[in-house]
Amino acid sequence: MARSCSTDAARRFNFAAGPGQLPPELLEQAAADLLDWAGTGLSVLELPFGSIEFRDLMARAEVDLRALLAIPDSHRVLFLQGGAYAHMGLLAMNLLAEGRSADYVLTGHWSERAAAEARRFGTVRVAADGADSGYRAIPPPAEWQLDPEAVYCHITSNETAHGVQFREPPETDAVPLVAGMTSDFLSAPVPVERYGLIYASAQKNAGIAGLTILIIRDDLLRAPARPLPAVFDYARQAEAASRVNTPPIFAVHFAGLLFRWLLDHGGLAEAARASERKSARLYAALDAEPLYQCPVAAEARSRITVRFHLADPARERTFIERAQRRGLCFLAGHPAVGGIRASLYNAMPESGVDALIAFLHEFAAERPAPD
Amino acid sequence: MARSCSTDAARRFNFAAGPGQLPPELLEQAAADLLDWAGTGLSVLELPFGSIEFRDLMARAEVDLRALLAIPDSHRVLFLQGGAYAHMGLLAMNLLAEGRSADYVLTGHWSERAAAEARRFGTVRVAADGADSGYRAIPPPAEWQLDPEAVYCHITSNETAHGVQFREPPETDAVPLVAGMTSDFLSAPVPVERYGLIYASAQKNAGIAGLTILIIRDDLLRAPARPLPAVFDYARQAEAASRVNTPPIFAVHFAGLLFRWLLDHGGLAEAARASERKSARLYAALDAEPLYQCPVAAEARSRITVRFHLADPARERTFIERAQRRGLCFLAGHPAVGGIRASLYNAMPESGVDALIAFLHEFAAERPAPD
Repeated sequence: MARSCSTDAARRFNFAAGPGQLPPELLEQAAADLLDWAGTGLSVLELPFGSIEFRDLMARAEVDLRALLAIPDSHRVLFLQGGAYAHMGLLAMNLLAEGRSADYVLTGHWSERAAAEARRFGTVRVAADGADSGYRAIPPPAEWQLDPEAVYCHITSNETAHGVQFREPPETDAVPLVAGMTSDFLSAPVPVERYGLIYASAQKNAGIAGLTILIIRDDLLRAPARPLPAVFDYARQAEAASRVNTPPIFAVHFAGLLFRWLLDHGGLAEAARASERKSARLYAALDAEPLYQCPVAAEARSRITVRFHLADPARERTFIERAQRRGLCFLAGHPAVGGIRASLYNAMPESGVDALIAFLHEFAAERPAPD
Repeated sequence: MARSCSTDAARRFNFAAGPGQLPPELLEQAAADLLDWAGTGLSVLELPFGSIEFRDLMARAEVDLRALLAIPDSHRVLFLQGGAYAHMGLLAMNLLAEGRSADYVLTGHWSERAAAEARRFGTVRVAADGADSGYRAIPPPAEWQLDPEAVYCHITSNETAHGVQFREPPETDAVPLVAGMTSDFLSAPVPVERYGLIYASAQKNAGIAGLTILIIRDDLLRAPARPLPAVFDYARQAEAASRVNTPPIFAVHFAGLLFRWLLDHGGLAEAARASERKSARLYAALDAEPLYQCPVAAEARSRITVRFHLADPARERTFIERAQRRGLCFLAGHPAVGGIRASLYNAMPESGVDALIAFLHEFAAERPAPD
């Protein structure tokens, strides 16, 4: 179903999986920076990427991201193009050498894709697979079949199609943990020291489409395992401070604004509290009405991606369309699973959740219209 | 030399190789669209990439680009991430099968890089090499050693380090012509039907960093020759209208604004006239003063990248710094060749060229200061 932005409502909340809602004050700031960046008389879009000013801009963004996530000195930050989907393959090209294999934990649509992309370039072992349970839960880490010789072990920290989320990083001992973290990046503190590599597209909680952020432990920055374009050679980009080629300047700038905004609003501890509160209220409202069914096991329910169905699936389309008219936008589920999903990124205010909960009760109280 | 944006001048002209100067009225429009896109109440940055509105936005950008370049129905347009530097390798991964080879014509720094990137993935033959002449001219096409069995023949239409430019596409008979066109894309009409593939980063004449535009003849859209990430599989992206993953939404939007602006200002014929006029005046001023030396042969001189040296190289640093203080910014040559270069993209007004010419004469009239 192609989705439109149109609505009858004056106030609009964007529940899309991404790009997501952004803080209005940052949109104002970014608009001003398009016209005159930091009093230079240049638009931020016109900064040459080798200029002192752009280097400073990117360096400040990195400093703020390091502060937000308490990134240890052992880890490097890269600001690259491609999107997380591209880096599912590119990370395997960088790390997964001939004759070695990598472990993948399958918890839904996106970890399946990550494994499929890596498989183009090397040997993928499935260490655990939640498919049998319909991806309604995370396979218990104690039951994973980890290969101690694996080059890395890959997880997807939050699944935006299936609505399951890791609560904490699994223990993989000496095997570096690699995490696709796009949809819950910067929604809560993360023990970065326990990861070998974190990668995330920016367009959820870190700004706008067109930027991929990677956090990589030093010892994984080696000559690439497979031939790949120079601009995707992580070691080379680390050495060149992400400037092997022109970075996506405006997306880096917007990410920097957002990092600063998060620091000014209590950092990731506060983001986690807000996320916990918003999702708990929404799940409670869903659980209170028999019309709504949350397929995900309680302990794996995502705080970011709240997925549900209607007991009467025939009414889902009506639900989504009426919500849209009320300004509750883009609630359709991922095409792979259907149903309904509400994405609760950092910029989604409590009032958006209030409005959705009010609509849930109102819709549940109605008798279905005859066909 | 790290370059700063700071200057004493009230009016500033950006002669950088990229990102380049942008039309002020488009910066105003883009700033407004950050706050409310087309009356939707959403920022253009918040449009879900599957929404009807974003599909329309991208479709309109393509329609306008097709009108500008008179792109025939035989050719598809892709809006991707990565940068042209990434696509130097990615195009070889798409096209250059095992056991086949591709021809490369070397005319300077960027065609050398394109060949080096392709060589990671397959066999590269050098069909012509201008290195012997110090890349001061394009090797005459009649002397190229073209392989009629080559998968494609690659050229770089304008070299931003060396300052040479093709006047027209060379004849490669049945071998598809592939052109890296980043720096002169949309500076003049191009007979697209004579190319198999054109690729260009947007941050010169097509907007901002973070977008690569590709124009590909249908018959080259086949299963990739080498394994590569799904989002860089050109055939797959063509089938999905460049939405295999989230496109760089704001960069696509800005490109669309620029295409429309060019159409409203006389299209590429007018862009070519302006480019011809600006560069001819600048070369005439340089040729009139013995202090300045243009190393490039007259017939290969770029209309976009005007490269020169001072007869006394020791004064170049002073030249660049004094020009910067006067608002003539970022005139340092590419690190690979040094010297001075002025990039004359579409948004560089005649008044910028006037100001540079006035400074050239003024600087030449001075006696060098004692060390």
